[in-house]
Amino acid sequence: MTAGAGGREQFARIALSFLAEPGDLALGALLRACGPAEAFAAICDGRPPTEGSAPGHGGVPGLSRAFERWAARLGGVPTDSRLAAWDRAGIRILCPGDPEWPTQLDVLGDARPLVLWLRGSADLRFACLRSVSVVGARAATGYGRHVATEMAAALAERGFAVISGGAYGIDRCAHAGALGADGVTVAVLASGLRYGYPKGHAELFAAVAGHGVLVSEWPPERAPTRPGFLIRNRVIAALSCGTVVVEAALRSGALSTARHARDLCRPLMAVPGPVTSDLSAGCHEIIREWGAVCVTRAQDVIEHVSPVGEGLEGRRRGPAYPRDSLDPVTTSVLEAVPSRAGSGPAAIAVAAGVDLDTAIGCLGALAAAGFVERCVRGWRIRKNA
Amino acid sequence: MTAGAGGREQFARIALSFLAEPGDLALGALLRACGPAEAFAAICDGRPPTEGSAPGHGGVPGLSRAFERWAARLGGVPTDSRLAAWDRAGIRILCPGDPEWPTQLDVLGDARPLVLWLRGSADLRFACLRSVSVVGARAATGYGRHVATEMAAALAERGFAVISGGAYGIDRCAHAGALGADGVTVAVLASGLRYGYPKGHAELFAAVAGHGVLVSEWPPERAPTRPGFLIRNRVIAALSCGTVVVEAALRSGALSTARHARDLCRPLMAVPGPVTSDLSAGCHEIIREWGAVCVTRAQDVIEHVSPVGEGLEGRRRGPAYPRDSLDPVTTSVLEAVPSRAGSGPAAIAVAAGVDLDTAIGCLGALAAAGFVERCVRGWRIRKNA
Repeated sequence: MTAGAGGREQFARIALSFLAEPGDLALGALLRACGPAEAFAAICDGRPPTEGSAPGHGGVPGLSRAFERWAARLGGVPTDSRLAAWDRAGIRILCPGDPEWPTQLDVLGDARPLVLWLRGSADLRFACLRSVSVVGARAATGYGRHVATEMAAALAERGFAVISGGAYGIDRCAHAGALGADGVTVAVLASGLRYGYPKGHAELFAAVAGHGVLVSEWPPERAPTRPGFLIRNRVIAALSCGTVVVEAALRSGALSTARHARDLCRPLMAVPGPVTSDLSAGCHEIIREWGAVCVTRAQDVIEHVSPVGEGLEGRRRGPAYPRDSLDPVTTSVLEAVPSRAGSGPAAIAVAAGVDLDTAIGCLGALAAAGFVERCVRGWRIRKNA
Repeated sequence: MTAGAGGREQFARIALSFLAEPGDLALGALLRACGPAEAFAAICDGRPPTEGSAPGHGGVPGLSRAFERWAARLGGVPTDSRLAAWDRAGIRILCPGDPEWPTQLDVLGDARPLVLWLRGSADLRFACLRSVSVVGARAATGYGRHVATEMAAALAERGFAVISGGAYGIDRCAHAGALGADGVTVAVLASGLRYGYPKGHAELFAAVAGHGVLVSEWPPERAPTRPGFLIRNRVIAALSCGTVVVEAALRSGALSTARHARDLCRPLMAVPGPVTSDLSAGCHEIIREWGAVCVTRAQDVIEHVSPVGEGLEGRRRGPAYPRDSLDPVTTSVLEAVPSRAGSGPAAIAVAAGVDLDTAIGCLGALAAAGFVERCVRGWRIRKNA
């Protein structure tokens, strides 16, 4: 925790995440109007702005009642010692504006996460630049588990991170398939990271942290709630370049992630199955009614999430995301990388106007995302990037 | 065989069907230019028109060589005694313009069948007004056979004729499913009707003739040829209101019917299956690449082949085809049917200007197609027709 303005903002976001549930649209609207530090101070001081009149809070509906709801939880706001304990447990906290913050979440508007708690070795932002969400029923069939495992492994082998929800069934197979192929996987949990729901997946979560990253919007000790699973699903849909539903019954919770992907205009795909299987009925419904693309293997998925003309060959050569999606520091480093001969990191750092550690960190991330590659003389722009 | 101009034209078509294979585009173009009687006479007389110059035959490419090809088969043209033998065997011959001719075949243009040989109790034209083609692989799986049987039975129960190709596998299940539900089924064979390929389906074909109709473009004794199956498939696609592929491998012959349906802009549907089954790969491909609609049950099919807003309820109330699709005599009978109180067939015959037998025949056909219904006072227009 730094003590400057950035630290105050970060602490306010952490504190607010103890007061409001993720996806609280009233808080989202308030933050849009006045920022986290001011919003938190107003709740602490017990001075809810008059609805529609207070400068800066104007026009946020239901704000007085929301203030009461938030203020009632003020006793749960963490102390510095708890922050230190999470840090020792390897949990890091991301806020909007941080280099690792996945800016694709910004499409969620007022429902954007306040903060993200993370544990794991992967860089969340860069993992998600080239990623697919693979989701489905907990009560999966042997067929669904087989298909999810194979598809996740094949996606991981092609350099795609596999995002899922850490649940039993299809989610587990998606994570395990990616890990089995030495790939990166991202588990977005509906509980806090130290609570780790479901408990039976403790070993799986440890493996995900080792080769990927665990993500939660909830404070680390928080138990899951029933509505929390549905709220969480918007993050799974928004983080990835596309969502694949492997098995889902009609009106299954697994379709809520699909609905978010559709509503966010992200590529939505479904794996067909026997029409005699209730667990494929949801997949067939979204293919027929929502226009989800019928995918049968990883190559179909890659072709659908890749820009037109890419993803048709054996291996992709360029990044899945355009340069626009990079933060300013990374962009300056990328612009300092020569396109042919290559340069060493020290020369790139000087050209970009950043320190050497920053340059090295950005180069690694740019390489993972397919923008640059190593060469004899250091680093150069990847062909077709 | 009548002896008038109509009889001459009909005999010429029958004779030509012994000279040319179905779908012969050179013959189709010639018929468009000069009609069947003149074309047959020209072949008999050995006077092929000069290409591009002869009046009436102008611009038919490859016509000289086609004349040689056709003339070489003149010895096979049937005598009157063979025509009488087919008649005794219950085989009737349809030509364009006959009341039972399915005018939806006219979309085939120069590839339209010359004649159709029929055997069976159903009226081909009216059966096809409300029909679905259900096709697929010969080497079907148990899954595919189950789905084809159930779907055909459910379509038959909802008053749809089931059209297929009489082959082993999915075709057989489509016919048998419809027959099991006391429905009408149409088998379009790639051999002559007396040859009856495959031989192992003799019992099935007898059952189809009993409750539906067997159809072929080939003279009754003709054995099937390999290309004949693909040529036949255009008729299966053109006869029905929509085509459903139940199981098909990639590059399977079963997809040729689907291709014809697509090219004719007829509703095209496919049943998904396990992505691990090669016999569902063709279905998934046409869903993904050709825009075939993913259907899982008969109700999905009915909704897709029905005009917008129909087919959504438990039972359809109106005809699947507009009045425009009826021939002039049937149209005049339909226009003589009152919309509310109802009339007896004799009054309708007088109002329509046709004899009583014709009126009764047309009324039965109109009822089967959903245009009219019986009431206390005779016949009336069906609601929503």
